[in-house]
Amino acid sequence: MYDVIVVGAGHAGCEAILAAARMGATCLLITSDLTAIARMSCNPAIGGMAKGQITREIDALGGEMAKAIDATGIQFRLLNRSKGPAMHSPRAQADRTLYSLYMRTIIEREPNIDLLQDTVIAIETKGECFAGVRITSSRVIEGKSAILTCGTFLNGLIHVGMNHFAGGRTIAEPPVVGLTENLCAHGFQAGRLKTGTPPRIDSRSIDYRKVDEQPGDIEPILFSFESKGALQSKQVSCFITKTTEETHAILRKGFERSPLFTGKVQGIGPRYCPSVEDKIFRFPDKNSHHIFLEPEGIDTNEMYVNGFSTSLPEDIQLEGLHSIPGLEQVKMIRPGYAIEYDYFYPHQIQATLETRLIENLYFAGQINGTSGYEEAAAQGLMAGINAVLKMRKHEPLILTRSDAYIGVLIDDLITKETNEPYRMFTSSAEHRLLLRHDNADIRLHEFGYRVGLLPEHRYQATRQKIEQINAVKTLLSQIRLESGLANKLLQELEYGEVTGAQQVTTLLKRPRVTLAKLLATSPELHSQLSNISNNPLVYEQVEIDCKYEGYLKRDALVAEKIQRLEAHHIPALLDYHAIAGLSNEGREKLKKHRPENIGQASRILGVSPSDISILMVHLGR
Amino acid sequence: MYDVIVVGAGHAGCEAILAAARMGATCLLITSDLTAIARMSCNPAIGGMAKGQITREIDALGGEMAKAIDATGIQFRLLNRSKGPAMHSPRAQADRTLYSLYMRTIIEREPNIDLLQDTVIAIETKGECFAGVRITSSRVIEGKSAILTCGTFLNGLIHVGMNHFAGGRTIAEPPVVGLTENLCAHGFQAGRLKTGTPPRIDSRSIDYRKVDEQPGDIEPILFSFESKGALQSKQVSCFITKTTEETHAILRKGFERSPLFTGKVQGIGPRYCPSVEDKIFRFPDKNSHHIFLEPEGIDTNEMYVNGFSTSLPEDIQLEGLHSIPGLEQVKMIRPGYAIEYDYFYPHQIQATLETRLIENLYFAGQINGTSGYEEAAAQGLMAGINAVLKMRKHEPLILTRSDAYIGVLIDDLITKETNEPYRMFTSSAEHRLLLRHDNADIRLHEFGYRVGLLPEHRYQATRQKIEQINAVKTLLSQIRLESGLANKLLQELEYGEVTGAQQVTTLLKRPRVTLAKLLATSPELHSQLSNISNNPLVYEQVEIDCKYEGYLKRDALVAEKIQRLEAHHIPALLDYHAIAGLSNEGREKLKKHRPENIGQASRILGVSPSDISILMVHLGR
Repeated sequence: MYDVIVVGAGHAGCEAILAAARMGATCLLITSDLTAIARMSCNPAIGGMAKGQITREIDALGGEMAKAIDATGIQFRLLNRSKGPAMHSPRAQADRTLYSLYMRTIIEREPNIDLLQDTVIAIETKGECFAGVRITSSRVIEGKSAILTCGTFLNGLIHVGMNHFAGGRTIAEPPVVGLTENLCAHGFQAGRLKTGTPPRIDSRSIDYRKVDEQPGDIEPILFSFESKGALQSKQVSCFITKTTEETHAILRKGFERSPLFTGKVQGIGPRYCPSVEDKIFRFPDKNSHHIFLEPEGIDTNEMYVNGFSTSLPEDIQLEGLHSIPGLEQVKMIRPGYAIEYDYFYPHQIQATLETRLIENLYFAGQINGTSGYEEAAAQGLMAGINAVLKMRKHEPLILTRSDAYIGVLIDDLITKETNEPYRMFTSSAEHRLLLRHDNADIRLHEFGYRVGLLPEHRYQATRQKIEQINAVKTLLSQIRLESGLANKLLQELEYGEVTGAQQVTTLLKRPRVTLAKLLATSPELHSQLSNISNNPLVYEQVEIDCKYEGYLKRDALVAEKIQRLEAHHIPALLDYHAIAGLSNEGREKLKKHRPENIGQASRILGVSPSDISILMVHLGR
Repeated sequence: MYDVIVVGAGHAGCEAILAAARMGATCLLITSDLTAIARMSCNPAIGGMAKGQITREIDALGGEMAKAIDATGIQFRLLNRSKGPAMHSPRAQADRTLYSLYMRTIIEREPNIDLLQDTVIAIETKGECFAGVRITSSRVIEGKSAILTCGTFLNGLIHVGMNHFAGGRTIAEPPVVGLTENLCAHGFQAGRLKTGTPPRIDSRSIDYRKVDEQPGDIEPILFSFESKGALQSKQVSCFITKTTEETHAILRKGFERSPLFTGKVQGIGPRYCPSVEDKIFRFPDKNSHHIFLEPEGIDTNEMYVNGFSTSLPEDIQLEGLHSIPGLEQVKMIRPGYAIEYDYFYPHQIQATLETRLIENLYFAGQINGTSGYEEAAAQGLMAGINAVLKMRKHEPLILTRSDAYIGVLIDDLITKETNEPYRMFTSSAEHRLLLRHDNADIRLHEFGYRVGLLPEHRYQATRQKIEQINAVKTLLSQIRLESGLANKLLQELEYGEVTGAQQVTTLLKRPRVTLAKLLATSPELHSQLSNISNNPLVYEQVEIDCKYEGYLKRDALVAEKIQRLEAHHIPALLDYHAIAGLSNEGREKLKKHRPENIGQASRILGVSPSDISILMVHLGR
């Protein structure tokens, strides 16, 4: 009998199984294809806006994704360098093949993980508890808990123009049939979503004179707080081009054979990541869209045409590509397509990702209606952690919206009505100044350590870093820079003159004053700081904390208030019908989502502030 | 318009596309899954009896398989070292993942190869000529010629016990549906074959105290005549155990749920490579069969259970494994299974592998009813070569039965009735003393060079080697060893004394006398030989040629006689009905196989010597 059975070995499944195994649980990973572990089915990249932050959070909690991309990344870039630190987002192109092999090797080295190449067709229960999974041979494998991470495989249907094919991820991978139906028989409600992918092209057929090169950062910012220097030494460039009015005219010709526009696709697609035909349809005034050409690996000719996701007929795709500058002679290695798949409305899971209907059964990743490797991995990690914590009768790990993007993600899933693939955005986080990529270790190390995933040396390193940050901050608040030096610096940075000695922290609040410049101006300050720490990451935190002190304090205050609402627990079996005064819509939504606390309840669409007041009175607060 | 379109990227497809591209043809490789190029679907090994010889022949002609296994092999062994040189067969375990990646990289670097990830569903013709392939979108891609290498994908059906699933290679890969039907509509006759694979187990769950280690050779013999030293430095061991009477009893329990014994499997399986249940059924007196545990890679826990191919129910497989010494606690990563698939009776192809029905359409590999990676690769190579030669209106490359195992293989295919998967055996070659692994370069370099596949430097190196062999042989035939030295050597090797000086070649004919020993005995001889060559491979040829001179000469004579029969060309449209005196069976078989020459005709089962005489008279010989 396994402690934890993970079904699926994509980005959610990998984090789930590694977390559970590293916490000491005996684990079984079941996947239909052991050669496709952690396969990047779409964009060969990790990170980007909000997703980069999530990847750092996964690392801070002891997950694997950040290390995997550090080991196999072929181009690293920190996005939004010119904006404030809350917007800085690490992103990297991955070698798709090496990424998959890396993750497979890591999983195979984990002594607590057994592998099984098979397909799960049903869930077995004992009462309302999970009991085992049924595989193709009808054999039942018993387990104390299971995490389903089925990606797009559940009744997957692929569309290219008016053609459609059964397919779990590509047409070369069959879908999983029967599991959705089995879960529905258990009482779950399934919906249908759609996502898509662009064509892949042969990089040798690009005219590089007509596209703009986009090299990686010279000094790559890695994802894992533990990684030192880029591990994959050779870095590659991406290339930028754009669609033309001709492209749009060509693609429009294919609209009458578009599975999206003709109603063939029933599933709902992601508005934020539309197909190119959708962009042309919705923004008819825009006569060009950016296209990013991204290599799929260090040693392959396959290139991903980012921005050109499409399910138009193959002939239209090719003709459309040929109208893009630089792609006039391009060879298409495979066409883009749309894929429809089943998911389960996420009001059916709790904040631990355990399903409400079947105890010890967890859902993670696209099965919950999300999109994106990072979102999937984050859920896998949390489900893995919580499955083991529950088995040990420990408190669950539930991150709040001010702890992490991961907290925002899961809270959104269980309180919002998700009718399209859910993607994480920085704008979804009300505390995004708190939830930066650079401080993920500081925010989350206690959690990772407590559950046993973050190793001692990393925990201690973070503790030391925090101590040094505090010591440097204390020192800076006590030091004044004499006016001569201060004015030398201010003049250099085109600020007006000051009189009298200046508190260093006050100077540092000015936008153009950086700690590096202050240290260059005052050798004495430099030497005093060096006595505490030479770590540039310590300096970085000090600078951000000082510059944004006001905002951060205000954010923390708001977060604290909300936190108090989260502490108001709502009994799982509360009879909302018995509570007089609730609005009809509020009552229905509360019954559907069954919030675990007042904080969650307050965020459910359709639950009004007065419903919340009534609820709190009813609960005797 | 492509010169050559290759459909399928298995072992046949890879050699076909590389050969055609390297000969200068513009090529398109179409495969359903670009991540599965050159995937080893069964045993993770290349070579072995007869197959090792084929691999060396592929290399001698300028193919890739030998280099691929040299680069990714993890254990090299020369089989039958204790037997004569005709039986020496190189074999190596491969890292399954690295082998596939190696081949993909090689193919991607070839400028003449375009890639397309798609599935071919039909062949288009113009008159009786190949015109193009139709892919899933219904788009037709035009080409001058095509080579179909469909492996087990055509209507593939996988059986495990009483369960069956559609599957092209594993249940994670869908079969190709429609292409068989299309080819049949073109007039081809399809049959059904079956093959199987054993379960894979977790190497960590083996009790190594109860199994015997089988390490590789300390000095590996590589496959390519060009390779120097093992390229993958770390070598691994295999392990040997055996089935017990208990195993047999357990497996017998499953016979009533065996798809083989209950008639569920319609396809005919390979007698020479039977499933373990078949072995138990057919040899009831044998109470044990060898089991070889073979690692699937350098860095994976997956292990291949060689000798335990089975399609018995999953529960029986697991119970059976647990009864084998060392496997009592073994964890099964995936069950074994049988797979049925369509093939086309190979009397429908010519010696060039071009189909008789559709000009410029070639079949290679399992589609012709063969089994084995090496057999497939050899056909792919020959089809690729002949497709290009034909396009250029050059003479085809047809290897005879005395040229190469590849010649035997293809001749057997077109003259024998193949009703079970065809595998190459040394016993199938009447000239096996000629067709050794060690002289494949000497036998075939002229062919490889003539068609433009063997590079100049390799051709010259082989020419030089041959010159040195001849020079050494001439020298040896002129030298006599004085009786003192000769007797010293003979005494050491426990032979009787001789009188008078001895011709070196005569001494060398004695079984225990080796050239190395002769050289050690006579420093003068050593220094004379060194003046010509120090190459141990030259010495090896000299020694074999000398020791087996009589046999080799006789073999060569027979081969020459047969060769003369091959020169008697038979017109393709010969009307056998108009030839009086042919036996009924002979006439039917001649009509069916349409032999290209008298040699082929004489080897067709059912064509009698008198039929051959009548035929020769008719043809005016």
